Amino acid sequence: MTSLRAAHVEIIAVGSELLTPQRQDTNSLFLTARLNDLGYAVKFKTVVGDETAGLALRVSEALRHVGLVIIIGGLGPTADDRTRQAVARALGRRLVFRKDVLRIIEDRFRRRQATMTAPNRRQAYIIEGAAVLPNPNGTAPGQWLRSGSKTLVLLPGPPHELKAMFDDAVAPRLTRRRAGFFARRTLMTTGLGESAVESLISGLYPKSDGLDLTVLASPGQVELHVTAHSRVSPTLAEKKAEGLSAKLRERLKGNIFSESGESLEEILGRLLRERKQTLAVAESCSGGFLGHRLTGVPGSSAYFLGGFITYSDDLKSDLLGVRAALIKSQGAVSPAVARAMAAGARRRTGADFGLAITGIAGPGGATPEKPVGLVWTALAWRGGTEVQKNLFWGGRSLVKSQSARKAMDMLRRHLLRQDGGGRRVKA
Amino acid sequence: MTSLRAAHVEIIAVGSELLTPQRQDTNSLFLTARLNDLGYAVKFKTVVGDETAGLALRVSEALRHVGLVIIIGGLGPTADDRTRQAVARALGRRLVFRKDVLRIIEDRFRRRQATMTAPNRRQAYIIEGAAVLPNPNGTAPGQWLRSGSKTLVLLPGPPHELKAMFDDAVAPRLTRRRAGFFARRTLMTTGLGESAVESLISGLYPKSDGLDLTVLASPGQVELHVTAHSRVSPTLAEKKAEGLSAKLRERLKGNIFSESGESLEEILGRLLRERKQTLAVAESCSGGFLGHRLTGVPGSSAYFLGGFITYSDDLKSDLLGVRAALIKSQGAVSPAVARAMAAGARRRTGADFGLAITGIAGPGGATPEKPVGLVWTALAWRGGTEVQKNLFWGGRSLVKSQSARKAMDMLRRHLLRQDGGGRRVKA
Repeated sequence: MTSLRAAHVEIIAVGSELLTPQRQDTNSLFLTARLNDLGYAVKFKTVVGDETAGLALRVSEALRHVGLVIIIGGLGPTADDRTRQAVARALGRRLVFRKDVLRIIEDRFRRRQATMTAPNRRQAYIIEGAAVLPNPNGTAPGQWLRSGSKTLVLLPGPPHELKAMFDDAVAPRLTRRRAGFFARRTLMTTGLGESAVESLISGLYPKSDGLDLTVLASPGQVELHVTAHSRVSPTLAEKKAEGLSAKLRERLKGNIFSESGESLEEILGRLLRERKQTLAVAESCSGGFLGHRLTGVPGSSAYFLGGFITYSDDLKSDLLGVRAALIKSQGAVSPAVARAMAAGARRRTGADFGLAITGIAGPGGATPEKPVGLVWTALAWRGGTEVQKNLFWGGRSLVKSQSARKAMDMLRRHLLRQDGGGRRVKA
Repeated sequence: MTSLRAAHVEIIAVGSELLTPQRQDTNSLFLTARLNDLGYAVKFKTVVGDETAGLALRVSEALRHVGLVIIIGGLGPTADDRTRQAVARALGRRLVFRKDVLRIIEDRFRRRQATMTAPNRRQAYIIEGAAVLPNPNGTAPGQWLRSGSKTLVLLPGPPHELKAMFDDAVAPRLTRRRAGFFARRTLMTTGLGESAVESLISGLYPKSDGLDLTVLASPGQVELHVTAHSRVSPTLAEKKAEGLSAKLRERLKGNIFSESGESLEEILGRLLRERKQTLAVAESCSGGFLGHRLTGVPGSSAYFLGGFITYSDDLKSDLLGVRAALIKSQGAVSPAVARAMAAGARRRTGADFGLAITGIAGPGGATPEKPVGLVWTALAWRGGTEVQKNLFWGGRSLVKSQSARKAMDMLRRHLLRQDGGGRRVKA
């Protein structure tokens, strides 16, 4: 138990600017990746302002919960850099002025042909008992100290200083405390809501301590994150992760579109390249978002020809050849118009596939029969067309993003069905 | 002292995914802005995983330090959504199953013509003594509760659910605890880099405690955030903010496109509506992103007709009427082709204005003469065309977003010049 705690980490980022609406700590993302690789688990992240009392408090609390506390920032030369004092207070230790550290700082200024200012002397104060971590990229030295069975590390805030110091001076000290091995899997699904996924995988939530499953839902996409931990070997961690993933795969089947982190547009890109086939789009309510997603993939010009943003009804007729009478009788948001748009995009560009989206993104334009979120997505290929009705949740931008994802998923499933020789609905 | 504490806030974001290297809490930025406006100060931010014990611990600690604890996330239907249990444990209270809440959830599914799954029943559990906060955008209700002199608020994690709930149900309850007055100005500029803005405003950084200026740069846009605080009156705060803003305005002039938070696309929408004029686009390297931005504005169908994503050279000729010989002699990424695309978009759709983008988004396709980031943006109107050369920094998505912003800014400046009767370059 004690040894497991020793691998638990709290990261505390210090700085009043990180408590404003404009700024955010991002150093912790880098540290988390590095720490995970070393077998450590980040259990808490905290942001504290430049106040000695508040910081001292949170450091004391962190020391009660985890084995390793990493404190970022507040090591600068100015009066609002209070990490040194706060940590000293939390531990009940003195600050010691270190002439050797001052000399290193002075040397740095000399090499840069700059003049050291008086406030920089503050950076030569070290907490009693701490080891000094050299800072090749700045003046603030880091500090490494032990308190009972616990370890504290003080790192500078500027990302390039922090990164170099962690890799050069912190990671080598941490490896000796390596507590285990992690293996991860990410299964990305689309086409099912969070509760539907939850029902399908019920009973698979791991009960063991070394295996963890997190379900992460965003509109139109549900991700399953599997994390396995082994104190013994990386192979064992991999085996655990794979065991759970295999069960999840069996339950979720074709709804899983990626396990490699590949996005839907990357998968489409790969499938279309393999087949030497091309794609065009016709977008109404999505307004260009589908094209934007598809062209987010480097090299997409190999299979994506382009398309049409037909926001007005006139353009649906003029550019895509959708009959005006059809729009009048069925409405622009209708399965027949969606099919005609997809077929028109294909025909007018000479692409192998046409994808179309027409719907009510809101907030205006809705009727009792056609509510906000009603979207028809259609696919046209050489042999016919397919259309799907969707009722998406959320506001304008969510309706757009879910529409694009759904259209891409229709083509993905179509291409995979072709492989399997499955039946397709024809128009 | 007690009343000051009451205005101190800790925001706790819940979710194991927020402790990975891939994800980050961003809801707290929105909440901080809103809370500051109400006179509250965020003192701590914490991220906790999906573990009941860890979360209960941090909630207990937070209640010792601040008057208001806001807990985000972990209210979903799945087994790893543990906020309800954890807060109940921290307060020593029971969870109560509320039939009235269940009915609201069931109604929501019925309206959406979807089937409620068993796990959603979990969302009808409310902490004893809590008020239920309705969620117009999702199934998870929020909760508001008091514990002694302290207040706890539980909000759902999806940003659009959290934002609506905060504004509709939380802010009205909080106003009674206001601790001071804030006034803000945001001056949004485009067309100048960060260092150019810094030079222009040098000497204007405020030295007083109640006035703050933050410069926030993103590619193609530099924002100046002015925050003024007064313990006495809102008028005094407004006066301080306006004094600094006036000086900034004088230095930055027409590069400021918005002070109201209006985005470029909203400004274009307003200007085009006023003039009863229409717009169409022709996009190459931006792949639909410009259309996506323009259609992000509710009601944009009043002035945005649609457009063309002409990713391939053939489509530039076939759909926009750009002469193939011109593409061959000048290249697709050239000022002549950009002008022809803008004019073609206008002509083929009957719009008053055409905006075109053609460039090298990278990473492929570059030559020594045409590097990644070279983008031509063009505007066509009844009287002629205008084209601009841009060299954008960054990867594929940054080149796309900067291109769209630049194209929109060209039309903005053109429309404002028309008002002023200024001269325009003709093709």
